[in-house]
Amino acid sequence: MSRPIFTVLVFLGAALAAHTAAAAGVAPVRARDLGIPFDGTPGPVNAITDVQGVLVGHTTLIEGEGKLVTGKGPVRTGVTAVLPRGLASMQQHSFAGWFAQNGNGEMTGTTWVEESGLLEGPVMITNTHSVGVVRDAVVAWRVAHGPADAKGDWWSLPVVAETWDGWLNDINGFHVKPEHALHAIDTAHGGPVEEGAVGGGTGMICSGFKGGIGTASRRLPAGDGGYTLGVLVQCNFGVRRNLRIAGIPVGREIDSEDPYAFMPSDEADLGSIIVIVATDAPLLPHQLKRIARRVSLGLGRVGSISGNGSGDIFIAFSTANPGASDIAHGPVDIRMLPNDSMDPLFEATVEATEESIVNAMVAAHDMTGIDGHHVRALPHDELKRVLAKYNRLTH
Amino acid sequence: MSRPIFTVLVFLGAALAAHTAAAAGVAPVRARDLGIPFDGTPGPVNAITDVQGVLVGHTTLIEGEGKLVTGKGPVRTGVTAVLPRGLASMQQHSFAGWFAQNGNGEMTGTTWVEESGLLEGPVMITNTHSVGVVRDAVVAWRVAHGPADAKGDWWSLPVVAETWDGWLNDINGFHVKPEHALHAIDTAHGGPVEEGAVGGGTGMICSGFKGGIGTASRRLPAGDGGYTLGVLVQCNFGVRRNLRIAGIPVGREIDSEDPYAFMPSDEADLGSIIVIVATDAPLLPHQLKRIARRVSLGLGRVGSISGNGSGDIFIAFSTANPGASDIAHGPVDIRMLPNDSMDPLFEATVEATEESIVNAMVAAHDMTGIDGHHVRALPHDELKRVLAKYNRLTH
Amino acid sequence: MSRPIFTVLVFLGAALAAHTAAAAGVAPVRARDLGIPFDGTPGPVNAITDVQGVLVGHTTLIEGEGKLVTGKGPVRTGVTAVLPRGLASMQQHSFAGWFAQNGNGEMTGTTWVEESGLLEGPVMITNTHSVGVVRDAVVAWRVAHGPADAKGDWWSLPVVAETWDGWLNDINGFHVKPEHALHAIDTAHGGPVEEGAVGGGTGMICSGFKGGIGTASRRLPAGDGGYTLGVLVQCNFGVRRNLRIAGIPVGREIDSEDPYAFMPSDEADLGSIIVIVATDAPLLPHQLKRIARRVSLGLGRVGSISGNGSGDIFIAFSTANPGASDIAHGPVDIRMLPNDSMDPLFEATVEATEESIVNAMVAAHDMTGIDGHHVRALPHDELKRVLAKYNRLTH
Amino acid sequence: MSRPIFTVLVFLGAALAAHTAAAAGVAPVRARDLGIPFDGTPGPVNAITDVQGVLVGHTTLIEGEGKLVTGKGPVRTGVTAVLPRGLASMQQHSFAGWFAQNGNGEMTGTTWVEESGLLEGPVMITNTHSVGVVRDAVVAWRVAHGPADAKGDWWSLPVVAETWDGWLNDINGFHVKPEHALHAIDTAHGGPVEEGAVGGGTGMICSGFKGGIGTASRRLPAGDGGYTLGVLVQCNFGVRRNLRIAGIPVGREIDSEDPYAFMPSDEADLGSIIVIVATDAPLLPHQLKRIARRVSLGLGRVGSISGNGSGDIFIAFSTANPGASDIAHGPVDIRMLPNDSMDPLFEATVEATEESIVNAMVAAHDMTGIDGHHVRALPHDELKRVLAKYNRLTH
Repeated sequence: MSRPIFTVLVFLGAALAAHTAAAAGVAPVRARDLGIPFDGTPGPVNAITDVQGVLVGHTTLIEGEGKLVTGKGPVRTGVTAVLPRGLASMQQHSFAGWFAQNGNGEMTGTTWVEESGLLEGPVMITNTHSVGVVRDAVVAWRVAHGPADAKGDWWSLPVVAETWDGWLNDINGFHVKPEHALHAIDTAHGGPVEEGAVGGGTGMICSGFKGGIGTASRRLPAGDGGYTLGVLVQCNFGVRRNLRIAGIPVGREIDSEDPYAFMPSDEADLGSIIVIVATDAPLLPHQLKRIARRVSLGLGRVGSISGNGSGDIFIAFSTANPGASDIAHGPVDIRMLPNDSMDPLFEATVEATEESIVNAMVAAHDMTGIDGHHVRALPHDELKRVLAKYNRLTH
Repeated sequence: MSRPIFTVLVFLGAALAAHTAAAAGVAPVRARDLGIPFDGTPGPVNAITDVQGVLVGHTTLIEGEGKLVTGKGPVRTGVTAVLPRGLASMQQHSFAGWFAQNGNGEMTGTTWVEESGLLEGPVMITNTHSVGVVRDAVVAWRVAHGPADAKGDWWSLPVVAETWDGWLNDINGFHVKPEHALHAIDTAHGGPVEEGAVGGGTGMICSGFKGGIGTASRRLPAGDGGYTLGVLVQCNFGVRRNLRIAGIPVGREIDSEDPYAFMPSDEADLGSIIVIVATDAPLLPHQLKRIARRVSLGLGRVGSISGNGSGDIFIAFSTANPGASDIAHGPVDIRMLPNDSMDPLFEATVEATEESIVNAMVAAHDMTGIDGHHVRALPHDELKRVLAKYNRLTH
Repeated sequence: MSRPIFTVLVFLGAALAAHTAAAAGVAPVRARDLGIPFDGTPGPVNAITDVQGVLVGHTTLIEGEGKLVTGKGPVRTGVTAVLPRGLASMQQHSFAGWFAQNGNGEMTGTTWVEESGLLEGPVMITNTHSVGVVRDAVVAWRVAHGPADAKGDWWSLPVVAETWDGWLNDINGFHVKPEHALHAIDTAHGGPVEEGAVGGGTGMICSGFKGGIGTASRRLPAGDGGYTLGVLVQCNFGVRRNLRIAGIPVGREIDSEDPYAFMPSDEADLGSIIVIVATDAPLLPHQLKRIARRVSLGLGRVGSISGNGSGDIFIAFSTANPGASDIAHGPVDIRMLPNDSMDPLFEATVEATEESIVNAMVAAHDMTGIDGHHVRALPHDELKRVLAKYNRLTH
Repeated sequence: MSRPIFTVLVFLGAALAAHTAAAAGVAPVRARDLGIPFDGTPGPVNAITDVQGVLVGHTTLIEGEGKLVTGKGPVRTGVTAVLPRGLASMQQHSFAGWFAQNGNGEMTGTTWVEESGLLEGPVMITNTHSVGVVRDAVVAWRVAHGPADAKGDWWSLPVVAETWDGWLNDINGFHVKPEHALHAIDTAHGGPVEEGAVGGGTGMICSGFKGGIGTASRRLPAGDGGYTLGVLVQCNFGVRRNLRIAGIPVGREIDSEDPYAFMPSDEADLGSIIVIVATDAPLLPHQLKRIARRVSLGLGRVGSISGNGSGDIFIAFSTANPGASDIAHGPVDIRMLPNDSMDPLFEATVEATEESIVNAMVAAHDMTGIDGHHVRALPHDELKRVLAKYNRLTH
């Protein structure tokens, strides 16, 4: 493939180490590796891809350094794609529900998700100013790949969400192009998911430290149905003083400057968090909305106040019920888990959300972006020191 | 207290004729009998009871006349009960959705309908100040009749709605008692449904004329699934100048005094309308919410502006999927009609809403209530005269 | 690229006449000119621009004819921009509320409208597959024109809506470009608004006839506050058999082939309608949501059943309260009209919606698009003949 | 007044101590007294009554012991009233918003709160089966006390919420009577608020320990407006294993039997929590809805997963803008805090919710109810031991 656009021009510093580590096959560090305690039992790779059929792809754009020249860079952004049913996602829809804990953000397509109960295609995440280009690219991808629907057309209302990376990235330069969205879709894969400053999460900041993409999963006991539930977050929210890990207000005990410290304290919660929940439990749309609403409780555990500037928007889908699509003309048979059996899934949602956020921060590395803006990653040693002080390390 | 509560003490005037007619077995007049045109094909009795299993019961309280003495009367009120699955409604729940076109009213239990997607028991309608007594009576009815649920208790969150009858009824006298609610449940039946000034609709006023209970149904062609959809309204909304029947602004051409004519014109829409939609089509909760939202389009056809004072609240349920309840512990099999097949049901909802409202007005008779307040029924002859002028009579 | 983008290459046939008429200064025909009765009193130009400060601009793209060659054309599409406070709309926000009667469509930015109660910038309307390009173009426009906000950035979550024009337009050719969005904004103006097949409405079909852009307004009596309320629709919904004008089912009496007649009857409601309501009445966000919800009643009057395929999405904003923006750091003084005084505005919304839809159809002309697909405009003479039959013409 | 019904017949055991202590004027123990750390600065009495004008009243019904005889007892229930503007609450309304994190519960009147943006009267809390009687009692209270509204009537849609106390209380005995609701209103007061097993909270269970009423407040720094925000909870949710206090999973380290331990673990979250947030900050209805939605984040901090059986319903109101009522006929002047200034209020909401819940549990005492069901209060010594182990005590 000759498309040079995906070449990641890695600049000096921590990011180099990160990408080198990944390239060298060194297993990335995750929150549990540091001894941080979490409840529940994860699936095999502790990622959203533990839900059978779910694929994740990233396009990471890192290019240039130094002073901002709008349209030139530096570039610290990207696109992440989550495909509910792999490349069949466009034709074979999934029951879904969504919820905005704080709607200071965009997630296109949600009006139809709400109305139809269906997610028709992938969920894409990028930066705030690139939602449009990614959205139309998904339409074009559908036209190029799929057959028309039963009515002979390619109606699409893609789901594309965003968080703001303008502190590190030349966001007004509009560096995300249609091919970047397509690349994220085309390279989506199962198994372990890259975390930290990758894909849509490349330029993100979370609770005063480097944020980005994180993921986790839970597998229920057989007695509770044996279902898997996975979460993926693009994590960009919060202020340092409120950060809680394992219930401990670690943000206050790590001596580190908040990148937004120059702002009035009541306006520093500039970020956002997009959360995608996948499960193979046979839930109906209104039940998936219930799942989406539990994400807030996971945010509560890490100290979020869902600040005014924070677009905290969540979507949950189920890979059960392959017959959920609108393709059929008569009634279709589907399965439903009764409400009374949902508690283990609610618990899994809260737990996996909490762990995904911490995973995103643990996986991230220091990054320097436009105008030399520097954002420090959550320092592993200091984090462990603080948790040890509160007797909250598992090892 | 020795008052024989369910005895209807009929006072002089039109109501006498009405009740006598019913008692004498004379078929009541309905909108189609007058030659008013409606779209679509009704079920056998053109009532919500055309949906198999749906029962309707009324308790009508008419007592006293003359000057208002709060607590003594005159009484012009009642209770209507709609049972989705007959007396099994408490144990065997139904998928449901609701919508408030204008929320100036009460429909208890909707928070759980929204969350669970289930209607657990009957839908009750009464006057504004009697919602509480009816609600607790339904709880007591469940405790008395049903076994406890799987957890050993009788949790209930009854659905009880209201409209305001204080122009005719001693509403502050709280004349509805628990036994009136139970009577409406216990006497619920299938087949033809009493319309006009009966049950919860006894003291209602609609678009300047006497309102009350109305119902209608539609049966879909076999090619569209052959489903039945029925509507029941408690009709108390609107101002005379906006009333449209068969698209014709008949309210402006019938010389009649609006009971609320003494009020400023921008405040005279004091009423409300509660609408219940039943269907045997296998719809999921989010699809039933879609049905409920179509009721507004039927209101639009009769000229409603959904005034500030009008509590326009709708609930739709499906009698399909008897396994929808939360009783089971593992997944259950259910059926779903795809969204793409819902248009005939949407159309049926709009049409049956329109016809139910006109049926309520056509069935009503003049009534005199507290302090001699008199409300005229929609005069059949004048209505026919106006529709004939506009070439809109079917016969 | 040398394509003279805004040149409208008019093809042979009815569209020529339309554009020629406009160019020649011949007053376009509107619904009232034909003698169709409507309630209420319009403002000076009977358009959304009667609300002081509201500007409307169109970019109309009509190019090529004959067989569809995706990417080449024929092109029948465009963009319409509605600016609440003229070019100051980006910096000076407006209270707003939205509602989806049927969410089979896209209106970006609504999550933030719902959360913040504010509309920050214009409302744009285009075709389904061009929402993204228009959305990012609005972001770019803001970056280019405005100062950064109080936090030093240009955060934007533009509101862009759509309806589907793929029966006439090469929708998969993505012919709308950023400059077309900017042109619609830059040429927005007050006074009379072009209606019919213009702007985003260029390729639209409504109730079996040619649709497009329509507008109307109402001015309240001084005793009701003297407020103005205006509506603009992009009208693409419905099936012919349900079309009601002045309450008369005219669609059934005009012998004309529905463009979608080849489809199963229960799937032919392919369209959508976007409705924008503007007022200078001092309404709060939750009150503007109430206004938006009344649009459905206007749709009911013209016979809509809000079919599954119809994205019926409405937004209402108020130009009162210039201090509504989030710019200030302490509390700001605003005015509020009490709920009890809203009925005249509800009535105006219903009436102006009804009239805007009819205006869109009356203003449209026959159009031939891709593959020779031909859509007939609502024939004025036949319409008058039918209304005369029902004694429903004003002159 | 000779009404003996308010006589609290205290039975043997811990409750005796509690009531004796209160009677003796011994200051009750609160969470901070035990050294539990919380963020933020409380108001003078650290209660919802720190918001000027807010009054709280309780009716506590404790009577009988031993075996359940439905209709006889034992009785462990009550009513709590929160009056936004004291006894003027009925005539002088308050802006309000509400949110259901999990709608397995009842809060009547919310449909009108959502529509109007106004809370018209008190917020009442009782047990699940007594919502109706309390609701109608509030209507009667209004009729008895207030003048009619501008239209000459006493329209009321009272806000009454509930949680389930059937493990300790003869809930099917319907022991709450109208006079109990009135007593709670009539005895409402400012200053310190009784916590624990009082009022509506009398028979409640929270996270496996005795629950009930709790409250807390926050006062913002002058630079953030100096506003006060207070919270009151009726706390009945959760399972012991998920309970987190100060971020520590204390529920797992206190050896105590969960009253619902006999149930399947995925169904033991039988409770609910009603949360009332009051503030004097000038917030509009949509902003108060934002406040209500932040309550979930406080629940997240204490470990809630918002189980299926848990009715987690929140309402927030503002005592600013006394002119918010619908009484006026023209526009009224009001004040609004811009969204950008809301973060300190969001933070206060999360903090005060967290503290109110812990206060409810700390204030409660062991209780024995029907059939000898015994619920242990959270043991102060053991709690301190666990928090000390994790270095999380302030003293």
